[in-house]
Amino acid sequence: MNRRVETIYGLHAVRSMLLRQPERVVAVRLTQSRDDPRAREIEELAKKNSRPIQRIDPHVLKQTLGDVAHQGVVAEVEPLPPWTEDDLLSALESARDPLLLVLDGVQDPHNLGACLRTADACGALAVVVPKDRAAQLNATARKVAVGAAETTPVVAVTNLARALKLLKEAGLWVVGADADGAKRAHEVDLRGGVVLVLGAEGAGLRQLTRQTCDFVVRLPSLGAVESLNVSVAAGMLLYEAVRQRSQPPGD
Amino acid sequence: MNRRVETIYGLHAVRSMLLRQPERVVAVRLTQSRDDPRAREIEELAKKNSRPIQRIDPHVLKQTLGDVAHQGVVAEVEPLPPWTEDDLLSALESARDPLLLVLDGVQDPHNLGACLRTADACGALAVVVPKDRAAQLNATARKVAVGAAETTPVVAVTNLARALKLLKEAGLWVVGADADGAKRAHEVDLRGGVVLVLGAEGAGLRQLTRQTCDFVVRLPSLGAVESLNVSVAAGMLLYEAVRQRSQPPGD
Repeated sequence: MNRRVETIYGLHAVRSMLLRQPERVVAVRLTQSRDDPRAREIEELAKKNSRPIQRIDPHVLKQTLGDVAHQGVVAEVEPLPPWTEDDLLSALESARDPLLLVLDGVQDPHNLGACLRTADACGALAVVVPKDRAAQLNATARKVAVGAAETTPVVAVTNLARALKLLKEAGLWVVGADADGAKRAHEVDLRGGVVLVLGAEGAGLRQLTRQTCDFVVRLPSLGAVESLNVSVAAGMLLYEAVRQRSQPPGD
Repeated sequence: MNRRVETIYGLHAVRSMLLRQPERVVAVRLTQSRDDPRAREIEELAKKNSRPIQRIDPHVLKQTLGDVAHQGVVAEVEPLPPWTEDDLLSALESARDPLLLVLDGVQDPHNLGACLRTADACGALAVVVPKDRAAQLNATARKVAVGAAETTPVVAVTNLARALKLLKEAGLWVVGADADGAKRAHEVDLRGGVVLVLGAEGAGLRQLTRQTCDFVVRLPSLGAVESLNVSVAAGMLLYEAVRQRSQPPGD
């Protein structure tokens, strides 16, 4: 029996987990001082789903979580099981305008965790990484993702180029980011089903990955430094996709 | 005598330092294998300015720098002296459409370094931080900034709200980012002289800082996670400013 649990926090994260997947919630903890409509809603949702609730000292929370925006609300949840390539392909069938983030050989679990956190904030369906020679979803990545690992699935694939081809066959556009991309990110249409691909720290996109891309775009490079951090680059590209998607069609 | 030196790397960074401020270059190092027009240009620039050149083993470089895109070219440089508030105000006099990044109490030197790296890539004039209760430009921040600390100055100010008021008097617009901002970043004009303000990890903008902002904008928040990492949020906002500035006026 797998008894490992993960911690998520913040009113929004805990509320949506109780609404969408209450069976994964092991326990809910609220700080002693919280007694307001939003906290009471969390309590009611937990009770309705027979989930245990604890009132705890805010100092304990600060010691455990550090300086994060927990808002006095945390939950222990069963970890999100990793998705297989098949899980991803079947999720795509029912997704409207899916946005995917692919990390082509990112080595640092901090960068994977940071990308996962941003992917979640930008409404990405999943984050895809290669199974070999790349950071996997370990404890460090989960911690940096501050709970996003429990809501945005990570898909580890054996052959990334093959996975990208399957995604193209499923109707998605594959857009890679690279310093010498022909267009700037805002010059490519990122609405509809889109796969955003970022290369490894330093090395960038691998040749085969690059060849699979429908477009390669460049991000700002006005300074003396050669490259952006991969999680910042992912943030910019995901931001641009969200910006375009928030505009009415034809703009 | 201050003999501390900092390392910058990459063809572009070393070349622009040799062109713009050769007096700060203590030594240039090229890997033994590099012998191409761009490397030769670096060599000639170093010779012209009487800067010592060394040929080194690429493995030594990898051991010293790790997995970064050094392109076989590094330079030891005298550190960029910190700017005072007066330095900043006089730099503004000759700057066209200056872009500034302000970090309102960011605690983690990794985040400061990451923001500095991105600010450099996005052509920011300087990064402003409060002198107290905020991460300063220490060795960790410099390392994470991968050389950007030697080209983009950090200005530590005693009173941030006062500094923002001086910047407004100098004709700049002050735009803060916060989860409950009234507009999205792309709905505010970020062309011209602009100050982008990010709050501390978890806490966000301080009340007084927020009141000083001409606009408060929000960044994507579509997921379960409450907030973006501050360096990713800075990346998104700087990206949006660069995007708008690359468009012809009236678009």
